Amino acid sequence: MTHPQHLILTGDRPTGPLHLGHYVGSLRQRVELQTKHPQFILIADLQGLTDNGSQPEKIANNVLEVMADYLAVGIDPQQTTICLQSALPALAELTMLYMNIVTVSRVERNPTVKNEIQQKGFSRSLPTGFLVYPISQAADITAFGADLVPVGDDQLPMIEQTNEIVHKMNGLLKTPVLRHCKALLSTTGRLPGIDGSAKMSKSLGNTLTLSASEQEIHQAVSAMYTDPQHLRVSDPGNIEGNVVFTYLDAFHPDSEKVAAMKEHYQRGGLGDRQCKNELEACLQTLVAPIRERRQQLIADKEMLMGLLKHGSEKAHLHTQKTLHAIKRGLGLPVMF
Amino acid sequence: MTHPQHLILTGDRPTGPLHLGHYVGSLRQRVELQTKHPQFILIADLQGLTDNGSQPEKIANNVLEVMADYLAVGIDPQQTTICLQSALPALAELTMLYMNIVTVSRVERNPTVKNEIQQKGFSRSLPTGFLVYPISQAADITAFGADLVPVGDDQLPMIEQTNEIVHKMNGLLKTPVLRHCKALLSTTGRLPGIDGSAKMSKSLGNTLTLSASEQEIHQAVSAMYTDPQHLRVSDPGNIEGNVVFTYLDAFHPDSEKVAAMKEHYQRGGLGDRQCKNELEACLQTLVAPIRERRQQLIADKEMLMGLLKHGSEKAHLHTQKTLHAIKRGLGLPVMF
Repeated sequence: MTHPQHLILTGDRPTGPLHLGHYVGSLRQRVELQTKHPQFILIADLQGLTDNGSQPEKIANNVLEVMADYLAVGIDPQQTTICLQSALPALAELTMLYMNIVTVSRVERNPTVKNEIQQKGFSRSLPTGFLVYPISQAADITAFGADLVPVGDDQLPMIEQTNEIVHKMNGLLKTPVLRHCKALLSTTGRLPGIDGSAKMSKSLGNTLTLSASEQEIHQAVSAMYTDPQHLRVSDPGNIEGNVVFTYLDAFHPDSEKVAAMKEHYQRGGLGDRQCKNELEACLQTLVAPIRERRQQLIADKEMLMGLLKHGSEKAHLHTQKTLHAIKRGLGLPVMF
Repeated sequence: MTHPQHLILTGDRPTGPLHLGHYVGSLRQRVELQTKHPQFILIADLQGLTDNGSQPEKIANNVLEVMADYLAVGIDPQQTTICLQSALPALAELTMLYMNIVTVSRVERNPTVKNEIQQKGFSRSLPTGFLVYPISQAADITAFGADLVPVGDDQLPMIEQTNEIVHKMNGLLKTPVLRHCKALLSTTGRLPGIDGSAKMSKSLGNTLTLSASEQEIHQAVSAMYTDPQHLRVSDPGNIEGNVVFTYLDAFHPDSEKVAAMKEHYQRGGLGDRQCKNELEACLQTLVAPIRERRQQLIADKEMLMGLLKHGSEKAHLHTQKTLHAIKRGLGLPVMF
């Protein structure tokens, strides 16, 4: 198959509205990338169900929330195709085909899956869908013919497994169909929770969503973890593990100013309150227009669903081409 | 969903042309059943790939062979809908959804899968597709809304697992969508190979296909395992494990005559040659018209593919209804 020079696939599991961690880690980057390369964003509802199989409403209710988040931060459906995983049968069909060339022991060895199984405490109650989700993710990436996949470094084993499948499946065909891909590593690390814990998570109550109110932002920044040893303004302060500075690094538009503040804080004489004021101002400025757009967007679910349907139709045509090429390559009839 | 009073789903993995074991064990029954109930026959190419992932041509090349077998034995596409598994995206999509509500340990405990993993010598090289094939089979059965599934008793754990999935999935929906099913157990046991081994298998060279020539039938019956202690015609003979009598039971239209022959053989005075002549005559009569029809049918692959496509289109509409009802029940959008 012929492919465009570069094509990006990225996406999110719709388990809740997106938060500032998503903004820093991926959304901001997508807004930039959409002007450079063809970009597909997949709302991965099927993948969301792999560990929420018994509470499908949690996934179903968040599909349009995530859609609203995308549009609110500036993802432009004219430039980026936003689509729904469960609307694209090629993804399920390719997963079925790939499952036959990947052994159980290979998916069990995938480090990302191993970690997540442990984190989620699955052990013997592991859903089969969760075990095979690297294969499903390989189906997603290859169905779109994506060669650039923005991920965190914890997801590198997924890219490796995808390329293994590409290699093996292409080897079964007279002419190769699938495209190898590579990770587009995020330049910023994972944003910690406002309490300083490594992971932002709604259930831990340490996130700020993209629709956080002025008051919520104020409270979150006020309560933010700093340097517990920094008791007086005149004391030298520590910026390592100091969430306020991590957030200033992530969100403040003026990196020179942040560098000067860090220096001042470490030397002594810069108070937490002042740093927090600086951070709050910058978060309020960032979130206010997103919140406002998001409010308007979420009020019109019909429009959101219309856009998602439009993108999914386009993605359907696109992914069916890969499925048909694979089927033909394997000698299976393509009927309709 | 509303269902017809009864609906039958049955099928075969297209790993080779069908043989007399299939005829006795299932094909004959299907020809009868098609006049009584709506019946779908699924050519299970995807399932065939679960343990032939690296030799897809073995599956692809046999799809129309099996189609020809069906028509040659009298399966009537006006009465029975014959369709291709890989042509029906609903089956893959439902499999993906069901995988999230079935644990890995549950499929590993499935006795049929456990046995087959051992038989096929998979151990650590078990393809994930093979591990989850009970879930895929549950998707097949439920997508069609089949309540009657003709199987051998070795397949009963599959029916049990399907009903577990039906129960669990229906429990997640406001109103139940999926239908429970039951096994329609074959009245005849598994036909042994002509060499007396329990399993007929092309690789063992102990089968007779539905297109066996007169000469092949003659040779097979001549070489057939009887009672190795039955040296002289006048000796009493043993009919236990005597393949000639097993085949006479399975194929001879006159059961009283077979009973009399058995009695005579056990008493002594009935020679193997005479029994074999009786069997050969009855097999030649059975196979001759099937072979002839099959020759004509396989010569027109375009016609065979046309019929398979027509059946698959009908099955597609049918199975999409179930998929859409499940998606709506889970709250997922149904877009196109």
